[in-house]
Amino acid sequence: MSEALRVGVAGLGTVGGGTVKELVENAALLESRCGRPIKLVAVAEMNRDRQAVLPLDGVTWYDDALALIDADDVDVVVELIGGSGGIAKKLCEVALNAGKHVVTANKALIAHHGNALAEIAEEKGVTLGYEAAVAGGIPIIKAIREGLVGNGIARVYGIFNGTSNYILTTMRETGREFGDVLKEAQKLGYAEADPSFDVDGVDTAHKLAILTSVAFGCRLDFDAVHVEGIRHVSALDIQFADELGYRIKLLGVTCIGDAGVEQRVHPCMVPADAAIAKVEGVFNAVVADGNLTDATMYVGRGAGEKPTASAVVSDIADIARGRNVPTLGVPAADLTDIPTVPMERHRGAFYVRLTLLDLPGVFADVAAILRDHAVSMESLLQHGRAPNEAVPVVMIFHETDEASVSAALSKIESLDTVVEPPRVIRIEQF
Amino acid sequence: MSEALRVGVAGLGTVGGGTVKELVENAALLESRCGRPIKLVAVAEMNRDRQAVLPLDGVTWYDDALALIDADDVDVVVELIGGSGGIAKKLCEVALNAGKHVVTANKALIAHHGNALAEIAEEKGVTLGYEAAVAGGIPIIKAIREGLVGNGIARVYGIFNGTSNYILTTMRETGREFGDVLKEAQKLGYAEADPSFDVDGVDTAHKLAILTSVAFGCRLDFDAVHVEGIRHVSALDIQFADELGYRIKLLGVTCIGDAGVEQRVHPCMVPADAAIAKVEGVFNAVVADGNLTDATMYVGRGAGEKPTASAVVSDIADIARGRNVPTLGVPAADLTDIPTVPMERHRGAFYVRLTLLDLPGVFADVAAILRDHAVSMESLLQHGRAPNEAVPVVMIFHETDEASVSAALSKIESLDTVVEPPRVIRIEQF
Repeated sequence: MSEALRVGVAGLGTVGGGTVKELVENAALLESRCGRPIKLVAVAEMNRDRQAVLPLDGVTWYDDALALIDADDVDVVVELIGGSGGIAKKLCEVALNAGKHVVTANKALIAHHGNALAEIAEEKGVTLGYEAAVAGGIPIIKAIREGLVGNGIARVYGIFNGTSNYILTTMRETGREFGDVLKEAQKLGYAEADPSFDVDGVDTAHKLAILTSVAFGCRLDFDAVHVEGIRHVSALDIQFADELGYRIKLLGVTCIGDAGVEQRVHPCMVPADAAIAKVEGVFNAVVADGNLTDATMYVGRGAGEKPTASAVVSDIADIARGRNVPTLGVPAADLTDIPTVPMERHRGAFYVRLTLLDLPGVFADVAAILRDHAVSMESLLQHGRAPNEAVPVVMIFHETDEASVSAALSKIESLDTVVEPPRVIRIEQF
Repeated sequence: MSEALRVGVAGLGTVGGGTVKELVENAALLESRCGRPIKLVAVAEMNRDRQAVLPLDGVTWYDDALALIDADDVDVVVELIGGSGGIAKKLCEVALNAGKHVVTANKALIAHHGNALAEIAEEKGVTLGYEAAVAGGIPIIKAIREGLVGNGIARVYGIFNGTSNYILTTMRETGREFGDVLKEAQKLGYAEADPSFDVDGVDTAHKLAILTSVAFGCRLDFDAVHVEGIRHVSALDIQFADELGYRIKLLGVTCIGDAGVEQRVHPCMVPADAAIAKVEGVFNAVVADGNLTDATMYVGRGAGEKPTASAVVSDIADIARGRNVPTLGVPAADLTDIPTVPMERHRGAFYVRLTLLDLPGVFADVAAILRDHAVSMESLLQHGRAPNEAVPVVMIFHETDEASVSAALSKIESLDTVVEPPRVIRIEQF
């Protein structure tokens, strides 16, 4: 195969620009590794500002992304526009239907519309590549879908959002509060002006939904993901975590059992000596538990121009090399519908921090409510006393079900002596 | 593609048995993921002991591995016999020449004969898969060759031998000496009766040579690897390492620069807080530095029946899926010959432990020799005094070239006051 694979890139933002540069500057390396040239023939972008700074000699410029579909000389459409609907969705749908390969870094799009897009791709016999949608420079889709292909996978978990991990790492290192560190991260360019996708767990949930489908061979079901972010994590909780031998991380966890699939995104306390606890700053990490391999861990930069471009280029190279793998690990028609285990049926350990008035007998009321809900406490942490004032009291519950904890805490919150809503952080053991 | 891919497995030892079990027991999963059945049709093994315990109904048994080549119903020959020459080499050569795909877990074979085998495979248009040869259950060949395909890679390093890592970890945890821990590891089945391939660094060197070729696109050159094992690492060195903030690991390191490629296997002191330092026991880890991704790390079990079978099966699945990737990342004909940087030109930091008679002025002689060789000491560690007796003295040299250190130490060793050969452990910074 020596015919060139001809590529059109839609969206010349950070990742689009990086992809263009790599395709052009590394053309010789890629040709040698792929056995045929990969040629950037077209780009599409409304904003002409980037035209001068990118190596676009001989490359056709379109203002309208959809023009790439009508371009006869484009074999692969690379969608780097973003957003779960709108033009990005339309571009991918129409391109696949037109028999063009599609490569995208768009996790929201795949999480919401991946089933339908996979069906079109397979019907048309073309590739829908989305390595860049999960964990940036870490080739995790390839690792699970191809490297662990012989494994039944029981669980995948990890840190999939560098912004949140940077904030939590900085909070721990400096003792500062969330809002303060977020502002600094925004100034440094590590967090967006609107940080909600990152810090509220939505971005992690998009990636988790994709990993769930690839790992378990089930249909993508973003709505089944339980999502909590890190806004309510306080410096005080981080300090208690440290004292108890834990680190707080925003994890995505997906696991499969007899009752179905549990997909959840929330801050977790993880043992300080667990490998995942040591993944700091903007780094991402994914752990996949295979029945043959046992745990395998993949660590790297999860975002940014070059790591994401690396993933986009790897998908293009696979197309050039003629690879043929079902989009979501098994053919779209064979994807199963596995029941979702609702969050109230989650079982696990819990860290709960109460703010109690330090009055005689106040803890007896709390203890009675816990007993009535069959929630047993493994340990209790209170530092010193402050009669008549509010003091933090930390309780650890081991192996309890979420519903009982919720019910007990809702009663506890209504006590007159409880002056703030209880703060709950789930504990994850590996 | 719905025609079955027909597989013959030669060698039914631990990995062969695991591979047979997975192919048979996970047949439905593999068919769904690969889009066609993968059928175990034949095995070859001289020893009939395993016949009863493996699921071999309807599978042809050959006593002679070479019979698989003449078997018309075998598309893929899986070589799990082992050894860098002999029957394993012959089987692979003849099978490839006969137009059959070959999958092997044999690192010695690939390290010594990979160039020639890759040439045959590519000439015949078949696949030579060897994912299982490096780091067992970690899909590292796939990650570098496909996932990081867009990257120029500057360095790959890691822990590729679980036996050595287990011994070093146990030595550190228990304070015991090498020979003692080795004996225990042999009893527990973590080390072979003849442990030399593992503890003398040869196994790590085989894997490093393979990674070098895949990462840099150069011809395999096992003889260019500088190899030292862990036999000379003492409990005392581990204790000093701990005090200095390091861990001792047997690393394979390969890096490329203007002067060429440096491939080396030896015990290293690595900063205790580096990710690689935390890879303990039988686990393996590989770090690849890509120019787009920056460092990416891959961690998992590097040996054993199931992790290795996972890698073997992934290669078979790739063949079933019709993948087409040059054996060593670029076509065998395009592999380059990059000069080897000889070890004496290695530059780095060094830990040196001397055993000196504690006499007045003894260190002045040492210091003078170091000065004469332009080796400058960053720090010196000596605990207490023992007049007229032998005491350990530890020196740390930063950024010095190997040749100067060797020359200085050879002079130092000849001093009357130096009662044991100096112990040298290179320090690696990441």
